[in-house]
Amino acid sequence: MGAPFVTTQLLRFCDTDALGHVNNAVYAVMCEAGRAELSQQIGLLAPDGGRAIVLVRLELDFLREMTWPGEVRIETAIQRIGTKSLHVRQRITKGDVLAARAATVLAVMDTATRRAVPVDDALRAELAPWIVEDFA
Amino acid sequence: MGAPFVTTQLLRFCDTDALGHVNNAVYAVMCEAGRAELSQQIGLLAPDGGRAIVLVRLELDFLREMTWPGEVRIETAIQRIGTKSLHVRQRITKGDVLAARAATVLAVMDTATRRAVPVDDALRAELAPWIVEDFA
Amino acid sequence: MGAPFVTTQLLRFCDTDALGHVNNAVYAVMCEAGRAELSQQIGLLAPDGGRAIVLVRLELDFLREMTWPGEVRIETAIQRIGTKSLHVRQRITKGDVLAARAATVLAVMDTATRRAVPVDDALRAELAPWIVEDFA
Amino acid sequence: MGAPFVTTQLLRFCDTDALGHVNNAVYAVMCEAGRAELSQQIGLLAPDGGRAIVLVRLELDFLREMTWPGEVRIETAIQRIGTKSLHVRQRITKGDVLAARAATVLAVMDTATRRAVPVDDALRAELAPWIVEDFA
Repeated sequence: MGAPFVTTQLLRFCDTDALGHVNNAVYAVMCEAGRAELSQQIGLLAPDGGRAIVLVRLELDFLREMTWPGEVRIETAIQRIGTKSLHVRQRITKGDVLAARAATVLAVMDTATRRAVPVDDALRAELAPWIVEDFA
Repeated sequence: MGAPFVTTQLLRFCDTDALGHVNNAVYAVMCEAGRAELSQQIGLLAPDGGRAIVLVRLELDFLREMTWPGEVRIETAIQRIGTKSLHVRQRITKGDVLAARAATVLAVMDTATRRAVPVDDALRAELAPWIVEDFA
Repeated sequence: MGAPFVTTQLLRFCDTDALGHVNNAVYAVMCEAGRAELSQQIGLLAPDGGRAIVLVRLELDFLREMTWPGEVRIETAIQRIGTKSLHVRQRITKGDVLAARAATVLAVMDTATRRAVPVDDALRAELAPWIVEDFA
Repeated sequence: MGAPFVTTQLLRFCDTDALGHVNNAVYAVMCEAGRAELSQQIGLLAPDGGRAIVLVRLELDFLREMTWPGEVRIETAIQRIGTKSLHVRQRITKGDVLAARAATVLAVMDTATRRAVPVDDALRAELAPWIVEDFA
């Protein structure tokens, strides 16, 4: 059993919108920032790596407003690895407040053919530290 | 039976990312642009209107990559109106290509109390032109 | 004597910030959108073109606030072409209001060597339609 | 003699563009992030403060490309305080590399009348710790 990958982001003033709070598209940006840093650590966003992570589906539950300024904590866990897909769960928190939960489905793409390829054993091994089946 | 609300957005160069395509968070931005214009037309984003639309849940299926430059078409339909929630379906297309489908759940918030309020008859009447139950 | 290159952008709700107006960084985005479309028209943003436009300096005068919703008009003129640089002037307007003026210095970069290269005669000819020496 | 106000920002994957580097409008975002945090510390971005900082002019010199991932350091110094204006200098660095220099002119606005007001003695005192006349 692993542990979620954790990163933080400092909110920027332009993350706010005219409703006075952090714009809802920024929640998607935060989720991507977490997934991208994890992907980069295991070599899946290297320019010449031949493979890239592709987002197939995003589900985002907005639980609480966030306001600027402050730091956002992004927890990213691998819930399950399918034949050709990764199922990821994320939590966005600010201070003690859980602001959002996200579930994403990702595929591994061959950057030459632009097609999804199976998740091989080497990648499964690299992702193992962040597998948390019941993360929510 | 109504018809979807349609708006367009010209892609901006900064909508792209290092993978050479339109960044996935921009899909969420496009969906919001469509919902916000519809909300504004029926007075739900007026600064002193007393009510605002709040995003509760977003589901986004990424079907195809988009590349800069070009125009994106955003179709927004009301699928169903609940007691305190609006269920919205959206389609993002570029040229002939359906790039994404989105389903969102929205609530109407009293801006003074910051609480969800029932969708009243006046609002139901205003939303009627855009109800398309089987939009997908 | 040429005429400015004109493009438009529909504001997006997320372009606003907590001060209730369009965020100032969006002015820079609008200027880039105008320059990028012009660059693309003359083949300077083609993926395999071997050359790209690089921004060296940006001067931006903020004259008026802009509010969502609405359309922004971006006028882009070539003021002067130096040996290795392009001097560009831009105007951002919304309705009848001149919201900002920008002056930028650009260089043409060889994408293989990442170095600035002289502006050759072919490029000068392509830029000629948009030269407006006294644009402001 | 004071010292610059320093803050950091972690780059986000969506800060990149199709040229493979951090998009130039993000440099403006970083500068704003630095100024906004400084403004917030001295109460100039409080919702009910009655005063806000307005950006009048931005000059930005792009010295070097930045690439994702990594942390950006933003140094912000008050160069000079005029009767109704603040002259600010900023440096954007990533690792050992100075990526950009910025000079901005700001005004203090009365949020009720939306007009510029004189910089009073209380504000001068609050800004004193960050005055660095020869910062560049």
